[in-house]
Amino acid sequence: MEDFNKLVEAEAANIQRQGEDEEEQDPESNTLHQPLLKRNLTLSSSPLAIVGAKVSHIESLDYEINENDLFKQDWRSRSKTEVLQYIFSKWLLAFLVGLLTGLIATLINLAVENIAGYKLFAVVNYIEQKRYLMGFIYMAGANFLLTLVAAVLCVCFAPTAAGPGIPEIKAYLNGVDTPNMFGATTLIVKIIGSIGAVSAGLDLGKEGPLVHIGSCIASLLGQGGPDNYRIRWRWLRYFNNDRDRRDLITCGSSSGVCAAFRSPVGGVLFALEEVATWWRSALLWRTFFSTAVVVVVLRAFMEYCKSGNCGLFGKGGLIMFDVSGVSVRYHAEDIIPVAVIGVLGGVLGSLYNHFLHKVLKVYNIINEKGKLHKLLLSLSVSIFTSICMYGLPFLVKCRPCDASSLESSCPTTGRAGNFKQFNCPKGYYNDLATLLITTNDNAVRNIFSINTPTEFHISSLAIFFVLYCILGLITFGIAVPSGLFLPIILMGSAYGRMLGIAMGPYTKIDQGLYAVLGAASLMAGSMRMTVSLCVIFLELTNNLLLLPITMLVLLIAKTVGDCFNPSIYDIILELKGLPFLDAHPEPWMRNITVGELADVKPPVITLSGVEKVSHIVEVLKNTTHNGFPVVDAGVIPTMGSANGATELHGLVLRAHLILVLKKKWFLQERRRTEEWEVREKFTSIDLAERGGKIEEVTVTKDEMEMYVDLHPLSNTTPYTVVESMSVAKAMVLFRQVGLRHMLILPKYQAAGVYPVVGILTRQDLRAHNILSALPQLKKSNRGKKGH
Amino acid sequence: MEDFNKLVEAEAANIQRQGEDEEEQDPESNTLHQPLLKRNLTLSSSPLAIVGAKVSHIESLDYEINENDLFKQDWRSRSKTEVLQYIFSKWLLAFLVGLLTGLIATLINLAVENIAGYKLFAVVNYIEQKRYLMGFIYMAGANFLLTLVAAVLCVCFAPTAAGPGIPEIKAYLNGVDTPNMFGATTLIVKIIGSIGAVSAGLDLGKEGPLVHIGSCIASLLGQGGPDNYRIRWRWLRYFNNDRDRRDLITCGSSSGVCAAFRSPVGGVLFALEEVATWWRSALLWRTFFSTAVVVVVLRAFMEYCKSGNCGLFGKGGLIMFDVSGVSVRYHAEDIIPVAVIGVLGGVLGSLYNHFLHKVLKVYNIINEKGKLHKLLLSLSVSIFTSICMYGLPFLVKCRPCDASSLESSCPTTGRAGNFKQFNCPKGYYNDLATLLITTNDNAVRNIFSINTPTEFHISSLAIFFVLYCILGLITFGIAVPSGLFLPIILMGSAYGRMLGIAMGPYTKIDQGLYAVLGAASLMAGSMRMTVSLCVIFLELTNNLLLLPITMLVLLIAKTVGDCFNPSIYDIILELKGLPFLDAHPEPWMRNITVGELADVKPPVITLSGVEKVSHIVEVLKNTTHNGFPVVDAGVIPTMGSANGATELHGLVLRAHLILVLKKKWFLQERRRTEEWEVREKFTSIDLAERGGKIEEVTVTKDEMEMYVDLHPLSNTTPYTVVESMSVAKAMVLFRQVGLRHMLILPKYQAAGVYPVVGILTRQDLRAHNILSALPQLKKSNRGKKGH
Repeated sequence: MEDFNKLVEAEAANIQRQGEDEEEQDPESNTLHQPLLKRNLTLSSSPLAIVGAKVSHIESLDYEINENDLFKQDWRSRSKTEVLQYIFSKWLLAFLVGLLTGLIATLINLAVENIAGYKLFAVVNYIEQKRYLMGFIYMAGANFLLTLVAAVLCVCFAPTAAGPGIPEIKAYLNGVDTPNMFGATTLIVKIIGSIGAVSAGLDLGKEGPLVHIGSCIASLLGQGGPDNYRIRWRWLRYFNNDRDRRDLITCGSSSGVCAAFRSPVGGVLFALEEVATWWRSALLWRTFFSTAVVVVVLRAFMEYCKSGNCGLFGKGGLIMFDVSGVSVRYHAEDIIPVAVIGVLGGVLGSLYNHFLHKVLKVYNIINEKGKLHKLLLSLSVSIFTSICMYGLPFLVKCRPCDASSLESSCPTTGRAGNFKQFNCPKGYYNDLATLLITTNDNAVRNIFSINTPTEFHISSLAIFFVLYCILGLITFGIAVPSGLFLPIILMGSAYGRMLGIAMGPYTKIDQGLYAVLGAASLMAGSMRMTVSLCVIFLELTNNLLLLPITMLVLLIAKTVGDCFNPSIYDIILELKGLPFLDAHPEPWMRNITVGELADVKPPVITLSGVEKVSHIVEVLKNTTHNGFPVVDAGVIPTMGSANGATELHGLVLRAHLILVLKKKWFLQERRRTEEWEVREKFTSIDLAERGGKIEEVTVTKDEMEMYVDLHPLSNTTPYTVVESMSVAKAMVLFRQVGLRHMLILPKYQAAGVYPVVGILTRQDLRAHNILSALPQLKKSNRGKKGH
Repeated sequence: MEDFNKLVEAEAANIQRQGEDEEEQDPESNTLHQPLLKRNLTLSSSPLAIVGAKVSHIESLDYEINENDLFKQDWRSRSKTEVLQYIFSKWLLAFLVGLLTGLIATLINLAVENIAGYKLFAVVNYIEQKRYLMGFIYMAGANFLLTLVAAVLCVCFAPTAAGPGIPEIKAYLNGVDTPNMFGATTLIVKIIGSIGAVSAGLDLGKEGPLVHIGSCIASLLGQGGPDNYRIRWRWLRYFNNDRDRRDLITCGSSSGVCAAFRSPVGGVLFALEEVATWWRSALLWRTFFSTAVVVVVLRAFMEYCKSGNCGLFGKGGLIMFDVSGVSVRYHAEDIIPVAVIGVLGGVLGSLYNHFLHKVLKVYNIINEKGKLHKLLLSLSVSIFTSICMYGLPFLVKCRPCDASSLESSCPTTGRAGNFKQFNCPKGYYNDLATLLITTNDNAVRNIFSINTPTEFHISSLAIFFVLYCILGLITFGIAVPSGLFLPIILMGSAYGRMLGIAMGPYTKIDQGLYAVLGAASLMAGSMRMTVSLCVIFLELTNNLLLLPITMLVLLIAKTVGDCFNPSIYDIILELKGLPFLDAHPEPWMRNITVGELADVKPPVITLSGVEKVSHIVEVLKNTTHNGFPVVDAGVIPTMGSANGATELHGLVLRAHLILVLKKKWFLQERRRTEEWEVREKFTSIDLAERGGKIEEVTVTKDEMEMYVDLHPLSNTTPYTVVESMSVAKAMVLFRQVGLRHMLILPKYQAAGVYPVVGILTRQDLRAHNILSALPQLKKSNRGKKGH
C-alpha cells in the first residue's frame, strides 16, 4: 500500500507541475483569434476545425465498445426480446431514413422546379416584349432575394449548413465529431437554403446538400429528435452510442446520394468508396435497403406528378440525363478521343482542385471578418451570376432553326426546351440562352442532348465553359448550401461537347455522348472516385452500353489527376483542419516508434483504482484529456502478498468521471464496491450521456476527502500497443479498429516500471503533428531513426 | 543474467515435458483416417481441412508486415525507381490478370459452345430420323466421355480443382492458405475439366470455376509462373509476400466473376461483398481496372465472332439473358407477387442449403473411400443426368405452334431456338425438350424469354423444376469443377415462371420477368448476397428498369433465408473445416478473456534474443508452432544495471529459424551481431522464401553448442493484447488487422512476471475450438464467467 500511495502522490505532483507549465486554453473562446487554424507545436494541440463556415472545437468519437462492468451487466441482462427489439429498430430506422430522405428530396425538387420555373417564365415574358432591362431587373432581383434567404439562414442560424457537408460527414465516419453538424436547425436551414440557392440560379447543385440532409435525418432519428425535444422511446436507447449512430449516418449519406441521382447502387458505392472509413457486409445490406426505399418513394412521386399535379414539375424532373434512347456505337479507333477526354479531365480536374483551394483560402479570410462579410460575399456572387447569365446570350449570334431537325418546335415555346428564342427573331434561336436562361438541371439535359450535332456553336460552348469555370470557383465557398457535383458536370460536359465538335469529322460518337464522357472525366479528375461514379453515370444515363468507355475515361482521368494533387474532398478536409486519419501511413512512420512519440508528449496522467475525489477534480480541471488509464497496486494472486507490483486495470473516460462527481457517488473509506452497489447507482443509459463539463460540478470540501471506486466504470479492455511498435502499424490498428485512445505499454517487465508509458489519440498519429513535434524527421525522412 | 538462464532452462524443461505429453501427429499421414475432420479437444489442434475433394494440411497466412531489421533495411534502401517499379508492376499484373482471364473465359466459351453444339446437332439428327435409342446412346456416351475426362483429371492430377473453389478463395483472403490451390496444374485441370463438365450437360456452371481460374492466374502471375519454372524477374520479388498476393487474388476473383457474367461492376462487388475479408479503396480501383480489361477482351472477341468465325459460337454467346428489349411496366399492386417470389426464394434457398449440406456430408464419406469411388460417383451422376434429360421430354404432350407468335420459325430449325420439335410432328413442338435438350446457358435464355406467355405448360415447368432440384443437389459435390450459380438460376427461373403462369390473370408482369425474379430470389435465398447480385442481374438482363423490384426481391429473400440457416458458402466452409474468422464475434466471447484462453493452452514457448542452436532445434522439432516470442534479459537504460528485468523483443517465425539453421549462421559466443554482418548474410528476398522443414536441416554436434542472434530476424512490432482483453475484442483486432499471431501480455508489472503470457492464433479464436476447450461455456453461455 505504501508504494501505491507514493505513486498517487507522485502523480498529483506531476499534474500540478503540468498545470503550471502548460498555458491552459479555452478552445471556444479562442475561435475568432485563430484565422487560419494555426496549429500548436506540441502533439496535444487543442483540436479546432472549420466546420461549414465556422471555426469549432471538435472531438473524437468513441467507436470502441467500452467494456466496463456496467456495460457487461447491461449486456448480459439483455433478453431475447430486447435483442429482437434492437434488430427491428435498426431496420425500422433504415426504412425511415430512406423514406424521409426520399420525401425531402421530392420536396426540394418540387420547390426548385416551381420557384425557378415561374421566375424564368416571367423573364421570358419580358424578353418577348423586348423589355430587356426589366427582364434583367426581375431576374437579378429574384436571384438576389433567393440568395439572401439562403445566406441569411446559413449565416445567422446554422453556419454548419453552408457548403456541401460531405467532408464533415467523411470526417464523422472517420471518427471526428463536429458539433451542430447533424442538428435539427441545420437540417431545416439546409433544406430551405438549398431550395433558395438552387432556385437562385447559382452555380451549385442540390446533391451535396442532399447527402448532408440524409445524414441529418439519420442522426436525428437515431437520437429520437432534436436535442431539446427528444422522444425518450425505450427502444431508442440502444442507439445512444457512437457506433450505431455511425451506421445510421452511413445509411443516411447513401440515401442522400441515391435521392440526388436516383441511383441506388451508386449511392451505396459512393458511401463505400468515398465517405465511409469502416465497412461491414451487414452495413452494405442495410444501406442498400435504405436506398431501395428512396427509389421507391421517388418513383411513386414521379408517377403522381406525371398527370400534372405538381405545378411546373414536368415529367423529366428526376432522371436527369436520360440518354437511353440513343444506340451507342463505338469501335476500336474511338479509343483515341476517349483517351484524350480522360487525360483532359484529369488535368482540368486537378487544376480545378488547385484553384479552388486558393479561392477557398481567400474566402476563409473574408468569412473570418464577420457575418456581414459572409453575407456580402454571397450576394455579390449572386449579382455577378445574374449579370453573366442574362448578359452573355446577347453576345452570340442568333442561329436559324434547322427545318430537318427532329425537334418539333424551334424555337421552343415551353420552359424546358432545347431551342430558346430569347432575343432572336422568329425561326431563329439563341444557343447560349438555351444553356444559361434555364435551371442547372435543364442546362445539363440540353447539353447532353443527342442527335443535335449542329445545335451549339463552338463559340457559345466556349463562353459557357469559361463562365462556369469562373462561377464554379467563386460560388463553392459562399455561405449557402452548395454541392460540387453539378458545377463539375456542367464544366465537364461543356468541354466534352467542344471536343466532340472538334473531333466531329474523325469519329462517329455522338456529341451528347462526348458531353457525358467529359462530365464523367472531370468528376473523376476532381473527386477521384471510380466505381461509384461509374455506377452513378450508368444509372443517370440509363444506358449500359456506355459502361466500358465510361470506365476507361474514369480510370484515365483519376490516374492523371492523382499525379498532381489529392482529391477535392481531401483538400477541403485539410483546409478545414479536420483530423482525418488516412488509410495509408506515411512511409517514414515505419522509422519511429510509439515510444518516441510518447516521449515528446506530456507524461501520461493515470488514476488509481480507488481514487481520492480531490485528485479527480484536480485532474479534470487541469487537463482536457478524455481518457485516463486506471492503475492499481496489484496483488498478483499466484505470487502471494504485495510485492510492489502494479496492474493496468483499464481506461476511464472523462464523461464518466464527471458523471460520478455529479451523482456524488463517493465512498467514505478507500475500498472496492460490490456489484449491487454499482447497479443501484448507475445504469448503462446514464453512461451513454455525454457532454457534462467539469465547471458544472460542485464538490464540497468534505467530499473532496472522500474516495471513488473507478473499477466498475473503467473499460477493462482498452486496445494497447507495446512501446516498440512502429507508428505506421499503430496507426493501422487505430484506424482499423476505430479507436479514440490507445494505451502504450512498456516493453520491459520489472519492478518499478510503470505499467503505462503513454496514451495516443488521433491527433498524435497525424503526420503533420508528428512532424511538428519531431522536426528532425522532416530533415531526414529516411534512415537514422530506425533501429 | 542468472535469472535469464533460469528462464531458459525452465523453458527447455517445459518443452521436453510437452513433447512427452503431447502425442505428436504428422498431419499429412493422417489424412485418410480422418473421414469427417474430427477436431482435437485442445485449442491447438493440427489444422486440417477438405480442400476441393481432399483432406489437406492448412496453414495461416502472414498478412502482417514483418517489421524486422532486414525488412527495415530493405525498405529503407528502396530507391524512388524501385517504388515506381513496384507501382508499375502492380498495375501491369492487374492488367495481365484481366487479359488472361478474359482470354481463358473466351476459350472456355468457345470450346463449350462448339463441343456441346456438335453433340446436340448429332442427337437432333438421330431424333429427326426417329432413331431414338441411337440418339440416347450417342448423347449418354458423349456425356459419359466428357465427364470421364473432367473427373479423371480432377481425381488424379488436381483434387483441389474439384468444386467451385470459391470457399477456398474466400478462406485464402481471410488468411488461410490451402496447399495446391493456386498451382499451374490446378489451373489447367480446372480449365479442361470445366469445359468437359459443362459440355457434358451436367447441372453445373462455369461461373465458380472461372472465379477460381482468375485467382489461379493472379497467383501464378504474382509468383512468376508455376512452382518449378518460375521466372526470377527482379521486379517480381516485391510480390513474394502474402499481402500482395492477397491483393492480386482479389483482382483475379473479381475478374473471374466479370468474365462469367460480363458484369464488371458486379464482379467488383461480388469480390467485395462475398469473397474478400479486407478491403481498401486502392484495391477497389485496381479490381475495377482488371474487370474493365476483361470486358474489353470479351467485347472484342464477340465482335470478332459475329461474322461466324467461331464455329457454333453464335452472336448470343456471352450476354446470357438479355431482356433489354422488353419495356418493363409494373405498378403498386404488383408488389404482392413480387413479395411472394421473395419469400418463396428465401424458403427454397434455405431448404436447398439444408439438403445440399446433407448430400455433401454423404459425398464426403464416399469420396474418402478412394479415387475409384470418386470417379464412379461422378460417372453415375452423368448417366443419371443423361437419362433424365433425354427421357423426360417423351413424357410431355406436343404443343401446337402458335401462328400469331412473333417467333418466325416454329418448330425451330437451328440449335438454339425456342421451340424444339424433338419427337413431335410438323407444326408442333416439345416444350420440355426446349429446356432440356440444349446447353444450360440456352436453357436459361429460353426460360427467360419474354412475350411468350403460352410457350411452356405448367406441367413441363414442374418436371423441369423437380429434375433440376434433384440434379442441383446431387451434381455439386462430384469431383469435377462445378459452379453453383447456374443450377440455382435454373431452379429459380423454373419456379418463377411457374408462379408467373399461376398469377397470370392478376398481374401484368411478363412471365420472362417472373423467371428472372425467381432466379434472383433463389440466389439471394441460398447465397445471401444482395448488392452484388443486384448489379450482376442488372448487367445480365441489361435493363435498368428492373432495378427496384430486383432489389426488393433480393432483400426479402435474403431476410427470409437468414432466419433458417447461414449462406451456402458458409455451410461449405464449415463442412470443409476451413478456419474462417467471421466478422462478428459470438456474444458469449465478451464474457471470457484472452488470459483464460491462454490458461487452457500449453504454456507459450519463448526463445531468448541470443539463443543456443540446440535449443532452437529442439523447439522446432517438438512443436508445430509457427511463431515464437523472443524475450531478452533486459537492461533498462534509465534504471542502470540489470535488475531482473525482462524485455519483450519481438516474434520470430519458424520459417526464419529454419533458414538460419540451413544457412548455418551461427556465432561462437553469446553476443549480438552488427548490422553489416546480418546484411552480408541475408537479404529480405531470402526471408520471403517459405516452406523449409526442420527435417531437412542437419546440424552437427559442434554446431549444436553455438549461438544464434535472433534480434535482427525478429518482428519487433508484433500486435499484442493485455490478458484482460475480452476474446470478442481480440478477435476484432485479429481479423481487422489481418494477423497470424497475437501475443498476450500480462496486466501486471512486477519483477518475476514473464513478459508474455501466451500467444493466440486463428484456431484459438474460433468459437468451436473455444467451446471444446472450455466446455463450461456451453452450459452457461451467459452470466457467471464475466467479472
